[in-house]
Amino acid sequence: MKGKFVAVEFEKQMQFLTEVEKLKIIYRQNTVVDGSRYENSAEHSWHIVLMAMVLLDSSDNKEIDLLRVVKMLVIHDLVEIDVGDMFLYDTEANQNKSKLETAAAKRIFGLLPANQCEEFVALWEEFEKRETPDALFAAALDNMQPLMNHYASEHRGIKNCSVRASDVYEKKKFIQKASKQMWEASKELIRKCEENGLFVKGQ
Amino acid sequence: MKGKFVAVEFEKQMQFLTEVEKLKIIYRQNTVVDGSRYENSAEHSWHIVLMAMVLLDSSDNKEIDLLRVVKMLVIHDLVEIDVGDMFLYDTEANQNKSKLETAAAKRIFGLLPANQCEEFVALWEEFEKRETPDALFAAALDNMQPLMNHYASEHRGIKNCSVRASDVYEKKKFIQKASKQMWEASKELIRKCEENGLFVKGQ
Repeated sequence: MKGKFVAVEFEKQMQFLTEVEKLKIIYRQNTVVDGSRYENSAEHSWHIVLMAMVLLDSSDNKEIDLLRVVKMLVIHDLVEIDVGDMFLYDTEANQNKSKLETAAAKRIFGLLPANQCEEFVALWEEFEKRETPDALFAAALDNMQPLMNHYASEHRGIKNCSVRASDVYEKKKFIQKASKQMWEASKELIRKCEENGLFVKGQ
Repeated sequence: MKGKFVAVEFEKQMQFLTEVEKLKIIYRQNTVVDGSRYENSAEHSWHIVLMAMVLLDSSDNKEIDLLRVVKMLVIHDLVEIDVGDMFLYDTEANQNKSKLETAAAKRIFGLLPANQCEEFVALWEEFEKRETPDALFAAALDNMQPLMNHYASEHRGIKNCSVRASDVYEKKKFIQKASKQMWEASKELIRKCEENGLFVKGQ
């Protein structure tokens, strides 16, 4: 498309928006509702944006900036274009994760004009740190959605069945810092997954 | 999950957020970037939300409320859960579209608590009418994205190749009301699609 758009900035934006097509072919560990294929990170991102819109009032912190949360959720998985979707419970694969993802963020957000690159990198870093109320709420939604999906898809076709319910509980318990209601629901969903054999029981 | 959540409102929200899983298995006419499968309406929705964030300054109207645009784009295709994805150029299929979609909106958004149902129905209707600056910008993004996708996926696996470039031009020319820059880019993309045999040439 080079040379065909009026502004250089717009051309960069179009290149970025074309590159992100690739997130639609980054597949996760769980399936879509009819079990026909694995869920991808783009549709997962859409789902949690909708969750943010609907569950905003469930946040215990009432100072949430919904637009910032939405922005974090829309872009939070883009680094996977270079790094792939790393399974939360694969300790080995996750060791170098942070370094690899930082390089991916630099490359992918670097396709954008400088001011947008800066904004997106900052939002992505804030999301990863889970310290601010916006980031905590966003991360809680990101961690609750797979549990809802497991329930909706009747736990079909999960790639890895050796995850212990107690590990899931440990990884997800930070949700209570964002929303007691969402954590209650998440615990109930973990219990159901355990009951249906998706997670291994006990310690 | 009945009875397990604290508030009735939250239970309704969870039911809605589980129902919307189905948008991930509503497939469109175009493929994902590697041609391995058709694109679905959930990941398409994610893509245009990201486009809204990135291309906001391309709107000729500078009074755009980005959060409202995002909300419209996230929910704009949910009616397809009941109605399916209707091909823009299938005149016959589109005749009853409006009536069917209104019923779908009533059922799907009706799963939510009343205040959220009202908000979403109103946003969806506003989007469909394309009259306000927010709705025009949202609809322009929704109409530009497939052209970008055709280009990125090298026009692989399109379902229907009998569409005339002149019809595409007619259907999409409203984009210029939202953004001259986006319309220039869209025209260029239509020309490329025509050149590569995706759209039929001439009148």
